[in-house]
Amino acid sequence: MKVTVRITISLKKGMLDPEARAIRHALENLGFATEALSTARVFLVTMEAAGKKEAKERAAEMCERLLANPVIHRYQIEVQE
Amino acid sequence: MKVTVRITISLKKGMLDPEARAIRHALENLGFATEALSTARVFLVTMEAAGKKEAKERAAEMCERLLANPVIHRYQIEVQE
Repeated sequence: MKVTVRITISLKKGMLDPEARAIRHALENLGFATEALSTARVFLVTMEAAGKKEAKERAAEMCERLLANPVIHRYQIEVQE
Repeated sequence: MKVTVRITISLKKGMLDPEARAIRHALENLGFATEALSTARVFLVTMEAAGKKEAKERAAEMCERLLANPVIHRYQIEVQE
């Protein structure tokens, strides 16, 4: 069956996010005050898998081996319905 | 009240996504076959607003003025509960 997983990769708590800081600053200059801002990357991956569990496991492996840097990133995997 | 919105910015349909293509290719080289892959950026923005409706409107304005390029991007805004 075809399964689509949504992989969200974000920085671990405590990691400095200079991009987020720059964006907050730019928003403030445009008159948008914000209390907090964080960024994340999302990958929507469609694959052929025996089931949802297998697709999730494969997605986790993709994160460990390519998509995320386990030192600074955390990832979250959801199966799209 | 403090409201957190989740802004997802992705490429419009039909737009070439060279990054996604490169990642698919790299995954394939690692033995992960995929049927499709797309990328998106997510911004979690917390702001002081009168209500959820106002927060959503402000987030849309942020997209139009800074976060997204309306020519190539589409954006989706959800209020986090």
